Amino acid sequence: MKIEFAKRMQKIKASEIRELLKLTQQPDMISFAGGLPAPETFPVEDFRKVADTVLEREGRRALQYSPTDGDGQLREEIAKRMNATRGTHVTADEILITSGSQQGLDMSAMILLDEGDVVLCESPTYLGAIQAFVPYQPRFREIPTDDEGMILEELEKALEEEPRAKMIYVIPDFQNPSGRTWSLERRKGLVELSRRYQIPVLEDSPYGELRFAGQQVASVKSLDTEGLVVHLGTFSKIFCPGLRVAWLAASPELRRKYELVKQGIDLHTSTINQLEILEYIRRYDLDENIEVIRKLYGERRNAMLEAMDEFMPDGVKYTRPEGGMFLWVELPEGANARVVLERCIKEKVAFVPGDSFYPNGGHENTMRVNYSVSSSEQIRTGVERMARVIRAYLNESVAAG
Amino acid sequence: MKIEFAKRMQKIKASEIRELLKLTQQPDMISFAGGLPAPETFPVEDFRKVADTVLEREGRRALQYSPTDGDGQLREEIAKRMNATRGTHVTADEILITSGSQQGLDMSAMILLDEGDVVLCESPTYLGAIQAFVPYQPRFREIPTDDEGMILEELEKALEEEPRAKMIYVIPDFQNPSGRTWSLERRKGLVELSRRYQIPVLEDSPYGELRFAGQQVASVKSLDTEGLVVHLGTFSKIFCPGLRVAWLAASPELRRKYELVKQGIDLHTSTINQLEILEYIRRYDLDENIEVIRKLYGERRNAMLEAMDEFMPDGVKYTRPEGGMFLWVELPEGANARVVLERCIKEKVAFVPGDSFYPNGGHENTMRVNYSVSSSEQIRTGVERMARVIRAYLNESVAAG
Repeated sequence: MKIEFAKRMQKIKASEIRELLKLTQQPDMISFAGGLPAPETFPVEDFRKVADTVLEREGRRALQYSPTDGDGQLREEIAKRMNATRGTHVTADEILITSGSQQGLDMSAMILLDEGDVVLCESPTYLGAIQAFVPYQPRFREIPTDDEGMILEELEKALEEEPRAKMIYVIPDFQNPSGRTWSLERRKGLVELSRRYQIPVLEDSPYGELRFAGQQVASVKSLDTEGLVVHLGTFSKIFCPGLRVAWLAASPELRRKYELVKQGIDLHTSTINQLEILEYIRRYDLDENIEVIRKLYGERRNAMLEAMDEFMPDGVKYTRPEGGMFLWVELPEGANARVVLERCIKEKVAFVPGDSFYPNGGHENTMRVNYSVSSSEQIRTGVERMARVIRAYLNESVAAG
Repeated sequence: MKIEFAKRMQKIKASEIRELLKLTQQPDMISFAGGLPAPETFPVEDFRKVADTVLEREGRRALQYSPTDGDGQLREEIAKRMNATRGTHVTADEILITSGSQQGLDMSAMILLDEGDVVLCESPTYLGAIQAFVPYQPRFREIPTDDEGMILEELEKALEEEPRAKMIYVIPDFQNPSGRTWSLERRKGLVELSRRYQIPVLEDSPYGELRFAGQQVASVKSLDTEGLVVHLGTFSKIFCPGLRVAWLAASPELRRKYELVKQGIDLHTSTINQLEILEYIRRYDLDENIEVIRKLYGERRNAMLEAMDEFMPDGVKYTRPEGGMFLWVELPEGANARVVLERCIKEKVAFVPGDSFYPNGGHENTMRVNYSVSSSEQIRTGVERMARVIRAYLNESVAAG
C-alpha cells in the first residue's frame, strides 16, 4: 500500500511523550501527568436519576437526530449561566453546542486559518490547541507571557509585524499548562488590540469557574463590544467530561460560520447527553457541584504548594495558581525535564515535560504538574520523590558543569 | 467587524433548500424530505435499563475522559459483528470509534485531501459527504452510475485522466440518495481498480444491514486484500442516531492516521454512549432490533412503490430499493424539481430536490424521496398529492413547450 496522504499529515505526528506516559498507568505510580478532573466529584447518583427521567419522558426524542446548533433550552440555560458567572450579555442564539471544547478549537481553525496564516498564542499554550490547529498549517507566533497574561507590548509588536495574523488564542483563567490567570487590565488591553487590528480572539476557558482563591476576573468575552471574541466553555471540568458536551458563544456572523462547518464535521452533538445535562441543571444545583470541586482542588493545590515549598531545591520556580488543575515548574536554565521524567518514572512519579506546550519548541527546563486527581497524601509523597530526583539531577549537572 | 475568514469559507454556504425544508416542520405536512430513522424502532425501555446499569456499575468511568480510539470491548464487538454480517476479517485493532459517520467523512478528507485534489464519487452522491469534503477544497469528479453501481469503464477513465485523484467515495448499499445497491461484480472491479491505481476507497455503509428484499452482497471491505478500503459503519440506522456513535475499519497504517487527527478534532467520542451501546449489545439482541427495522421499512417501501405505480404519471421513473430509506425519482428531462417542491409544500407534502446530491450541479429533474418515517397511510396520501402536483406541472410544461 502506498497511499499519498495530504501534505498536512507530515506535520501531524504521534507524540513521543504520549508513549512515555503510557508507563504512568501502573497502579503504584503517582501521576501528576494527566489532565483529568477528579471522578469522585461526578454526581453519579443524581445523573442516574436524570438519565432515567429523560429516557422515560422523551426517550425517542433523546435517541433521535437533533439540530446542529444544539438544544434550544440547553442553550438558554448556558447563556443564563454565562451571564451570571462570566459577566457576559449573550443570548441563547449566540450559543452553539460543541462536541467538547476541542471541537470548538478545530472549527475555529477551519473557519479562520489558511495555510501560512499566523496564530498568536501565549507562550506556553495548551497542547490540545496546538494539535487542533496544526492540520490547518498555520505558523505559531508565541507571545511572551508573565504572571498577568500576554505582555501587551509584545502582542502589539506581533500584530504590527504579522499581516497574516488571523487569531489570538488565549486561556485567560488558570491556564493549562501554566496555572496563570490574566489580570483585568491585560484583558482590557487584549480586547482593545483585537478591536484595533480586527483580529478575533479565541477565549478558551474550561477552568474559569474553578477559582478557589483570590478574586474572580471578568471574562474577555464580557469586555467585547464588537463581536470579535469567541468564548469556549465546557461541562467537562465543572460537571463530567465523558459526555463530550461543551459550547461556544460568538456573535451572529461568526456563529453562523461555526454552525455551517459543524454540519459537515459531525452533524450535531449527542442529543441524549444534551438533554441529560439540561435536566440536571434544572433539577439539581450545578453551582453546588462546582463548589465541591473548588474545595477539593483548593485542598490539593495547597498540599502541592506546601510540599513544593518544603522539598524543592533552590533554583526551582513554580506558579501558585488560584484555580484550575495545574501548576508550572521551571528548572534552572539548561536542565532537561525529559531526562528528569525518565528518572521520575523509575521512582513512580510522573509529570508532563513543558516543552510540549511550546509550538515552536525549546523550554526543555519546564514541567506541567497536575494536582486534580491525586489525594493530598499522594501529592506530598509524589512531590517529595520528584524533588529528590530533581535535586540529584541538578547536583550532577553542577558537578558536570 | 471585518474578520477575514479562511478561503475555504467562500465555498461553505447555507443550503437554500434547508430554508425551504423548514416549512416541512408543520404538523399536517407529510414529509418525505428527511433522512431520519423511524423513532418507534428505538428500543427505549431496554436502553433505559442499560443506561441505569452502566451508571450503577461504572458511573465514574462512564462520565470520565476515555481513549481516542474508543472503548476496546466495544471495538471487539463491532469487529465480531462486521465479520459475521459484512464478510470482513477485521480485528478490534482495526476499528476506531467515531462521533457519527459524518466524522469519518471529515477525517478522511483531512487525511487524504490537499486543495485541488480529486474525489471520485458516484453521481449522485451523499449530500453530507459533499459538505464534509468541501472545506478541504477538492474537485469532485462524478462517475456515471447505473443500477449496479459506478460504471467501471468510466471509473477507470477518470483514474487515468486524474493524476490528483486521492479517494474513491462510494455508498454501495441502498445508496443515499438513489436507493441503489452495487452488484458483486462491480465491487470486485472497484477493488481491483483501487489496487491498480493505489487509490483508497471510502466505503460508507450506514444502511448495509437494512436489506428487506433480495440477496446480501459482500461489502467492499471484505474484498480488499491490500488495506486500501476504509469502511464506515454506524449505530445510527440500526440502533439510535442520537448517541452519535459510529466506527470505521481501516488497515493499521491508515487507522493510525485517523487516531492522530481525531485527537485534534474532538479527543474522543462520548464514553457513556459507547458503554451503553456495549451493554445493550451484550444484554439484548441487536439483530432482533434490526429485524424490526427491516420489516417496517420493507412495508413502507412497498406502500410507496404501490402508490408510485398507481399514481405517478408516465415519464416519471423511480428506483425500487431492496433496503435502506430512500428512493430516487427522475422527472422527464427539463423538469425542475424545485418548482415541484414549492407546489408540493402548498399541498402539504415534501421531498428533497435531487440536484443537491450532485457536487457539480445539474440534474434539476431529480428527487430524493424518504419512506422511513411515514406510516403506510401517510405514504399513500403523500404520494398521491405529489403525483397530482407533478402531473399538473408536466401538463403545463408540455402545453408551454
